Amino acid sequence: MATTTNNNTPQTEATIPGLQVCLAREEPVRLDCGIDLKNINVAYQTYGQLNESKSNAILICHALTGDHFVADVHPVTGKPGWWSELVGPGKTIDTDRFFVICSNILGGCMGTTGPKEINSETGKPWGLDFPGVTIADMVRVQARLIDHLGIDKLFAVLGGSMGGMQVLEWAAKFSDRVFAAIPIATEARHSAQNIAFHEVGRQAIMADPDWCGGDYLSHDIRPHRGLAVARMTAHITYLSQSALHRKFGRKLQERDVVSYGFDADFQVESYLRHQGITFVDRFDANSYLYTTRAMDYFDLAGDYDGALANAFRDTKTRFCVFSFTSDWLFPTKASREIVRALNAVAANVSFAEIESDKGHDAFLLHEPEFFRLMAGFIDGAAELHGLPRRED
Amino acid sequence: MATTTNNNTPQTEATIPGLQVCLAREEPVRLDCGIDLKNINVAYQTYGQLNESKSNAILICHALTGDHFVADVHPVTGKPGWWSELVGPGKTIDTDRFFVICSNILGGCMGTTGPKEINSETGKPWGLDFPGVTIADMVRVQARLIDHLGIDKLFAVLGGSMGGMQVLEWAAKFSDRVFAAIPIATEARHSAQNIAFHEVGRQAIMADPDWCGGDYLSHDIRPHRGLAVARMTAHITYLSQSALHRKFGRKLQERDVVSYGFDADFQVESYLRHQGITFVDRFDANSYLYTTRAMDYFDLAGDYDGALANAFRDTKTRFCVFSFTSDWLFPTKASREIVRALNAVAANVSFAEIESDKGHDAFLLHEPEFFRLMAGFIDGAAELHGLPRRED
Repeated sequence: MATTTNNNTPQTEATIPGLQVCLAREEPVRLDCGIDLKNINVAYQTYGQLNESKSNAILICHALTGDHFVADVHPVTGKPGWWSELVGPGKTIDTDRFFVICSNILGGCMGTTGPKEINSETGKPWGLDFPGVTIADMVRVQARLIDHLGIDKLFAVLGGSMGGMQVLEWAAKFSDRVFAAIPIATEARHSAQNIAFHEVGRQAIMADPDWCGGDYLSHDIRPHRGLAVARMTAHITYLSQSALHRKFGRKLQERDVVSYGFDADFQVESYLRHQGITFVDRFDANSYLYTTRAMDYFDLAGDYDGALANAFRDTKTRFCVFSFTSDWLFPTKASREIVRALNAVAANVSFAEIESDKGHDAFLLHEPEFFRLMAGFIDGAAELHGLPRRED
Repeated sequence: MATTTNNNTPQTEATIPGLQVCLAREEPVRLDCGIDLKNINVAYQTYGQLNESKSNAILICHALTGDHFVADVHPVTGKPGWWSELVGPGKTIDTDRFFVICSNILGGCMGTTGPKEINSETGKPWGLDFPGVTIADMVRVQARLIDHLGIDKLFAVLGGSMGGMQVLEWAAKFSDRVFAAIPIATEARHSAQNIAFHEVGRQAIMADPDWCGGDYLSHDIRPHRGLAVARMTAHITYLSQSALHRKFGRKLQERDVVSYGFDADFQVESYLRHQGITFVDRFDANSYLYTTRAMDYFDLAGDYDGALANAFRDTKTRFCVFSFTSDWLFPTKASREIVRALNAVAANVSFAEIESDKGHDAFLLHEPEFFRLMAGFIDGAAELHGLPRRED
């Protein structure tokens, strides 16, 4: 696959391995905020081979703090790809059969143009001069990438959480280019509670003096403390009360008695602190502001006179919607609203609520029932799409 | 009522109106951490008149960020007392019939000895030199106050959230001094999720450079930003998803379109920011650390060989336990554990789960069913206790 590395907009930190292409060189992408953005670098990974008819492509959309290293070892953390349980040779998303694409979102911080990158017009990092982006903007850029890869129609688009928002956006705005859509643990509009949690995270970042009004990169510092607090708050919302209880309960961390102080007495505190500390090594604070904002703004029905069903009118896409019983951030109720809208326009939709006590994070974890149902849907859709069967 | 203002330990800020007494002048209070604390100032309010037999006293225990201004206008905010809907002449807790006492907790910041006050040994604010306190320590100090007031046995002890923990502690450790106990929206042990949320709040405070390692009072600054973030996070947990949806939904704040920036576009953001900003005017950051820690440490069964029922063995106290359907911070499940323990020792207990969509905060709000059931329990208990009936 031909790829281009664009040196007009170099990265501010060590170059991230993987594929990168500069898109919108001629025709800018018109963002929802009204700004035309050109020369958009997109970092992405692919897995498997595109078949001759270019009909076996699956686009995976990543979540808030995810990236395109779906099934590769992460270049910063050294950990396995975030969906390596699901994606790979012989796995549910079988890279022996499908050509899997995942790109870092617009506004991200793993190689795609975002606030961390250099604004070629000023020669300095974008920071808060970066235009506000939306889920629709992310998808517009993904569509350009799919154009670049010469793919007319995707066999499937799937993703969880913010990735699921992108799936819904794809299905609504590019219906003819999506054969099957799998929105997972997501919602068609961000709830007040979820906006509230995001706002707390942003306030934590912006309260950190090292944020420097968004200009920390110019000062060669990072708002590590604020970003860690933001991550800690968010992390609690990704789990469930029962998962936290099962995993940690009130167990103490490397001690027999409490300290009567503010050390991490409890294992759950130590775990959360670790989540915060490690996150800052791999994520950009401004990128966190932009992407949480994009999620807050997501309200798909808003583009269709307030009626979500209108987003899917006359769709030929086949849908499979997933939720998880203990996910209180993107609860089953939110998935049911999507299913209801799809049913209202007689779309082809199946829905599964997976029994799990792992909370929102369940979509990233080992959930055999989820994998099994997903495999069933994908295999059925592949057959309808004229793709060869899974080899047993 | 005779009260003493102790000038050995003057307050660091403007004196707070109300009653204050210096307790443990001779006999120190032995805290759970092993430290003996003397000369403990306790700020408190009383409402109504103590009868001749001293049998009509009700102790109200306040929650994390509450104080003793239950039914008085708050001296800092100018707002009505936090339970003025419930407590007053002719109200559910009728101050024409009962002598109501509420004291600021040990470790608090509204006049009772805590990290904000001057350590008489050093002449400087305690800060992090203040000993770690527990719910049991708070109750030990309350018991001294009740001694000071010449009351042998309380007619009732009631409180919600952290106040409810104190109620359980009173019923367990001072069973003979409590005729009726009303723990509301509480739990007998703090859950991993709740510890996690508290830890995020503490990290937000301690991440603020103005916290100065806890010594901010000596530098005449306050970690306002960190404390505001802590409050914002906590505030979300006090509400329910449906309450946030009903109250704010996705309504924009004084604008027709989003800003594509990080202003408070949504009303829920503006509301949360307001909660954070106003909180710092009335609360001390170190006090927040100490009191959240006290809640984290609360595990009543831990004092009774891990069996909560043992805490209430042979109790003669009558209990009425309340929970609220949409409270996900202190869910009904936690109240049921208390009720189960009480049932296991054949205690006299009634339990009511109140239908409300207002989340944990419901116990502070206008909930007619809650008030009605509470009145019924109190009136019945008063009759058994030989107190005159409510005048209709």
